Order: sequence, then C-alpha cells, then structure tokens
Amino acid sequence: MAVYTQLGAEALAEIIGRFGVGTLVSAKGIAEGVSNSNWLIETEAAGKAQRFILTMYEMRVDVDDLPFFLGLLDHLAERGCPVPRTIHDRDNQPFSLHEGKALALIEFLPGVSVGDPTPAQARAVGAALAQIHLAAADFARQRANDLGISAWQELAQACGGEGLASIHPELGTLVERELPRLARQWPQDLPRSVIHADLFPDNVLILGDRVSGLIDFYFACTDITAYDVAVTHAAWCFGNDGRRFYRELSAALLAGYESVRPLSSAERSALPVLARGAAMRFLLTRAYDWMNTPADALVTRKDPMAFARRLEFYADQANAGIFGSQS
Amino acid sequence: MAVYTQLGAEALAEIIGRFGVGTLVSAKGIAEGVSNSNWLIETEAAGKAQRFILTMYEMRVDVDDLPFFLGLLDHLAERGCPVPRTIHDRDNQPFSLHEGKALALIEFLPGVSVGDPTPAQARAVGAALAQIHLAAADFARQRANDLGISAWQELAQACGGEGLASIHPELGTLVERELPRLARQWPQDLPRSVIHADLFPDNVLILGDRVSGLIDFYFACTDITAYDVAVTHAAWCFGNDGRRFYRELSAALLAGYESVRPLSSAERSALPVLARGAAMRFLLTRAYDWMNTPADALVTRKDPMAFARRLEFYADQANAGIFGSQS
Repeated sequence: MAVYTQLGAEALAEIIGRFGVGTLVSAKGIAEGVSNSNWLIETEAAGKAQRFILTMYEMRVDVDDLPFFLGLLDHLAERGCPVPRTIHDRDNQPFSLHEGKALALIEFLPGVSVGDPTPAQARAVGAALAQIHLAAADFARQRANDLGISAWQELAQACGGEGLASIHPELGTLVERELPRLARQWPQDLPRSVIHADLFPDNVLILGDRVSGLIDFYFACTDITAYDVAVTHAAWCFGNDGRRFYRELSAALLAGYESVRPLSSAERSALPVLARGAAMRFLLTRAYDWMNTPADALVTRKDPMAFARRLEFYADQANAGIFGSQS
Repeated sequence: MAVYTQLGAEALAEIIGRFGVGTLVSAKGIAEGVSNSNWLIETEAAGKAQRFILTMYEMRVDVDDLPFFLGLLDHLAERGCPVPRTIHDRDNQPFSLHEGKALALIEFLPGVSVGDPTPAQARAVGAALAQIHLAAADFARQRANDLGISAWQELAQACGGEGLASIHPELGTLVERELPRLARQWPQDLPRSVIHADLFPDNVLILGDRVSGLIDFYFACTDITAYDVAVTHAAWCFGNDGRRFYRELSAALLAGYESVRPLSSAERSALPVLARGAAMRFLLTRAYDWMNTPADALVTRKDPMAFARRLEFYADQANAGIFGSQS
C-alpha cells in the first residue's frame, strides 16, 4: 500500500500523452495494490473528463506475465465482465516501459470495497466470479499458479517449524497435520480454467448490491475452477480474524455462483478440501510475510492466525454441511 | 505518505452522508499529506459526479488548530484565491469526529505538482502567494509559528552536535555559526500576516502555466509575511539537492509576487536573512526526522544537506544580489 516510484508532472504528462486520451488534469498517487505504484489519473478531451488508473509494476510482478494479466482484462471486458479494460497506447500496446519499469493505463471503475458484506452483495460476487470463469474459457494464454498446492510444502519449509511456533505455539502442528492430508486428498481431475485466486473484498468494487468491478488480477492463473470458489468463500464468509463464520454469506455466495455456473457434484464434493487448501495458502503466505516484516514497519502485517482459524473451521467435520447442495 | 486509518465502505458512506453531497460512488486512499489519511471521494447527485478530498487528521495535527486551518481555506476561497473550499456538514460544521479522530471534506481541485518548474510557473506561484497574503489580511484568527525562529535553538539541541555531525561532519559547525547570526539579525518590525510556511511544489497544483490550487495549509501560521516569500524561494529556486540555483526561477518568482504585492524596501533588504532562516528551518526539521527515522523505514527520508547547501548559498556574499530590486 504505497507509491514506490515518484513520477513528476512532466513524466506523467509525457506518459499519458502516449495514449491519446486527452490532456492530463490531475494525478494522485493511490494507496492500493500490494506492491505496484498506482495513480488515479484524470484527463480532459473535448471538454469531457475521463478517469484512469496508471499502474507501474514494481518488483513483485514479472513483466513476462503482463501479456497474460492485461490480455485477460481485455478478454473478460469484451465479454461483458465487470473488469477494467486496458487502454492501449498509440502503437496499440497494452503496456510500455518507463525507465526500465513496465506501466499500463487501465480503465477507472466506480464502486467501493465493502467491509461488512450483505448476503445480496455476496450473491453478486459469487455470480461475478462464475461469469469470469465462463468468459475466460476461450482465453488462449495460460499461467501456472505459483502459490498453488505444489508451492505450499516449500513455503512451510521457508517459514520453518520454529518460525511458525513463534507466531502461535500450535501453528506448526496445524500445518504439519494438514499439509500431507491436502497432498493426499487434492482433487486431480476437476475442471480447470483461469481463476482470479485472490478475490477478497478489497478486490471487488460494489455499488449498492451490484458488482461494478473485479480488480487486481495479479495472482490470476490457470488452476482448478472450484478452487477459486473456495478462495472466495474463505475471503468473504468469515469475520476478518476468522473467529466467526457467516452462514448466510456462505449460502448467498454459493447460490450466486451457481445461478451462473452450476457446480458439478464432483466439484461440490471437493469444496471442503479445496477450502482447506485456500485457507492453507493464505496462512502460509501471511506467516512468511509476518516473519519477514519488522513489527514496526509501516505496512500492516496481516495475521496468519485469521486463516489458521478458517483452516480449523473447514477441517472440522461438524461444518461439513456448509458446502451441501445449494440449489 | 500513507493511509493510516482504514475506513470501510459503510463508514465512508455514513460519513459522506453527513454532507448532503450525494451518494458515495468511489473512494480511493491517496498517498498524500505528511501524516493525515486522505481519500479521493467521488459522489453522484442528480446524475452529476463531484469529487472531494476527505481528510482524517492523525497525530501531527492538533484538533484545536482546525478552526484556524479550515476557516482560513474558506476565508481565502471566498476572496477568490485558488484554495479548496471546505464542505460544511448538515450542521454547518467544517469538521466532525469519527471514532475520536477529526475529519473534514474538502473540495477537489484539478492540477498536478510540477517537478521542474518553468519561469512562467514560478511567476504564477509568486503571484498566488501574494494573493493569499493580501486576502488573509482580514482573517480574524491567529496561530503561532511553532517551527519559527524561536523553535530553532531547541530543535538544534534536540539533534545535538554529534547527531548533526553523524549526518555530515560540517553540519554541526554550520548550524552553530548561523543560529546566533540569525538571532542577532532577525528583523523585528516587518509586516506580519497569515503565511503558508510550506509552499513547496508538492503543495501547488498547476495546469499549464496557471496555479489551479494551493493546498496543505497545515503549517500555516501568523509570522513575517516576507518570510513566506523566503520559504517559497528556498522551495522553488534550487535543484532538489540544493546544489544548483536557478536564477530565472528566482527572478520570476519574485516578479510574480511583486506583480500583486510589491515588497517594501525593508522587506526586500531582509530577504537574505529571512532566506537563511527558511533554509535553517528545513535543515533542522529534516535533520531531526533523519535521526529519528530508521534508514530502512518505508518513508523516504529527506536529506537535510539539501537545505544546508541552500543555507550556504544564501550566506555567501557573492549571492547577495539575487534579492536586489525586481521591478
């Protein structure tokens, strides 16, 4: 959440000039995105104000992945999904370089990120997720999920048993118990597609009960479609700290999803293990970041325990019914 | 440069609802301001989009000062100065509290902050500065300058000779030489008024050669009017690192100022000592922040030496002519 690169007005005006979207009128660095620099840009052309997000990609995003990320936005937007279009420059390129860093100009979408979603909003999010799954079916590019199940063992080792125990005495035991179970039970033949893989409330813009935008596709990849449902479930159906499960949000999210793309019975049966996997993924990346971020750093560390609690919840047989038939 | 407080969409919608400016359509945390949280807000009323800056005041701003800061904006805006109006809430209050923190809704102004000003832009900035000095003449409130000359000795002591030497071997000597000179030579009977006291390029919005906004009045106070000219001179007429002086920017800034408010001969004669004072003020606050910010913190430390160089420049007799007659 920062602006890592300073761009003067002159550089910004030159950059915006490459796109044929009018004259630069305003540029505000915005505190969004995990590790990119973003500006909310306003231009004027023929008396009409237009807004855009200018993104400069910093270390975490690999430039080789940009054709996937940006091509996906265009593909989905063309098919009516609520995602921002990329603005191509005068050479019809979706991104270009500025002093060695890649940047892209992306459509601004209205809407706000909700903190306490309502069931109607969760339903709309489920439907929007299913919409991108269907619309991405004929997207030609692929991208491996580098934070998928094959990465978890290594992540756990990078944290180390002692490291995990330093966060919470039982965290190491939980990971040790669940990782082999996940490896054993992980489904092998479910439908795969492009998935968002990080559809937290932060990455959904909402107006009233309507999804006005799905954003931040920088974890998008090719993986099990229903795993994305599980990630979104873990992201939307609990209180932040993971102590409280919201049954109505869960039911609404799944019903919204199935109103657009019904789950097969194999997918539905796999949801409990996929949800444990989703909780494990965020538990591990948060634990790793926790251990590698000084306690007094200006970035807010996200508590890994919030996802340890979700993992325990999903692993509890008493909760097996939450993914039961939704229709 | 951060958003210190997280506000969910629900809280934001409730807050914006207090102002009667339509429905919340978008809210982006922006990376601006030294230690406040700011959001660029968009609302819609009767099909018309409006933009505002929502500011939440964090530790550095004293709530008791808000009637001065916000009242000043309204006072200046009413007199046609390019400053943002404050939006009063339904109870006609310019600020209110949210969970113990003060917040204000402020008009959004277009424009960008320039990195390499042109003489025409420097001229416009000088004229805008003079305009606020004149327009503030009948502003009823006063506020002491807590970073004025009476604070410098204490700031230097807080840094300590060793502390200053740890930044640069000659920094302590420079401060020791110049502080008593400033105390001895500081003018006592020049006109006083409200001054901005921090009019760096960051705090000026520009469109082409026109000043579209002066912002961030949170150092504004009552002090020697010509000291504000000196601060603005130190802020605009040098390369960032203070190694290079731009004679054309200096001449343009002063000519622009005098096109609106001519300096008296006493003010003009005092500019060299006032400029040394301005350089000392930023030298000392930057040195203090430098020593109290870990080198690996996410905030960019600003180099105190950039103002030590300006101080040396202003103290050099060879440069005495730069403040000579401008008319």
